[in-house]
Amino acid sequence: MKYGLPLLQALVEHFRKLPGVGEKTARRLAFAVLDMEDGEVRNFAETLLQVKEKIGFCNRCGNLAESDICSICADRSRTEGVLCVVERPADIYVLEGSGQYRGRYHVLHGVLSPLDGIGPEDLNIESLRERVAVEGIREIIIATNPSVEGDTTSLYISRMLKDSDVKLTRPARGIPLGSSLEFVDRGTISKALEGREPI
Amino acid sequence: MKYGLPLLQALVEHFRKLPGVGEKTARRLAFAVLDMEDGEVRNFAETLLQVKEKIGFCNRCGNLAESDICSICADRSRTEGVLCVVERPADIYVLEGSGQYRGRYHVLHGVLSPLDGIGPEDLNIESLRERVAVEGIREIIIATNPSVEGDTTSLYISRMLKDSDVKLTRPARGIPLGSSLEFVDRGTISKALEGREPI
Repeated sequence: MKYGLPLLQALVEHFRKLPGVGEKTARRLAFAVLDMEDGEVRNFAETLLQVKEKIGFCNRCGNLAESDICSICADRSRTEGVLCVVERPADIYVLEGSGQYRGRYHVLHGVLSPLDGIGPEDLNIESLRERVAVEGIREIIIATNPSVEGDTTSLYISRMLKDSDVKLTRPARGIPLGSSLEFVDRGTISKALEGREPI
Repeated sequence: MKYGLPLLQALVEHFRKLPGVGEKTARRLAFAVLDMEDGEVRNFAETLLQVKEKIGFCNRCGNLAESDICSICADRSRTEGVLCVVERPADIYVLEGSGQYRGRYHVLHGVLSPLDGIGPEDLNIESLRERVAVEGIREIIIATNPSVEGDTTSLYISRMLKDSDVKLTRPARGIPLGSSLEFVDRGTISKALEGREPI
């Protein structure tokens, strides 16, 4: 659709590039920007620029950070000796949301995927070995996604660390809370039955 | 949720202010920005600023415009003498999307709402009278929303123009295409029966 407004059209296109945003949503968002206060939009634009400029990766764990070390690695109240391995920084915020985990993290920035030509050298995986030695890690929870690539990566890490005495675990797979058995796929049901727990 | 990243948090807040964007979506969008190319983000930020700076309203109809007159008013191939009155510029793009209408528009920038203290002087409504005289308007389609305020505004316009010989119409109300009778509300069913058409 043409707007006769190249600028508005350009803004719609920018919104459309965001995940899960289609033509209609992009248009609604662009019109919402037109309705915002000038200062608000300037602030929004400035934040976009700053986020890209100033956010980098933590030197230790690979999480997002506004300085050399991320806030989780810098937090002395976190449990020492426990790491949770995740694929992406975004996963950390999901895990943090549960409030259940108090250790630190290690971000791989991807998963092994031979078909896409992604090997261990393309990931932040070798440094995990160093961390185990230097930081005296006792347990690593491998929280890669429950996909073929995630499982392959998990297996690779467990082989890499087989000579250390780190305890390797992974989050339980099973029926998600609040879901209905009717809508749970067969694979999940199998895993849930395999891992059944005494009541 | 805290990110330990004030900048990222600020970006999430900006996305959350957009319509229909909740916490989870805002977070996904913010992370997507982090994954974008630098140039892409600069472009996005620049477009946001430009949109607010350069897009104003058409002097004639009140539509969005990057110059004094919007592209629809400036388009000489549009049918002369027919206006469609809408509440907001966004409505124009919905109507244009149908490809059905070839006249010009008049944007009220709101609707009459005595409860909210919005009277005719707060809207772009008086200029409609002038346009009728100056542009030789024969028909006005009042396409305000099918709400109490929309209907009130429609009534106000028809009274305002009762001494002119402009033909006033409004889009048919009825059952939307592709919907199922089961899900259509009673008010719409009533209107659809009232306005029933020979097959």
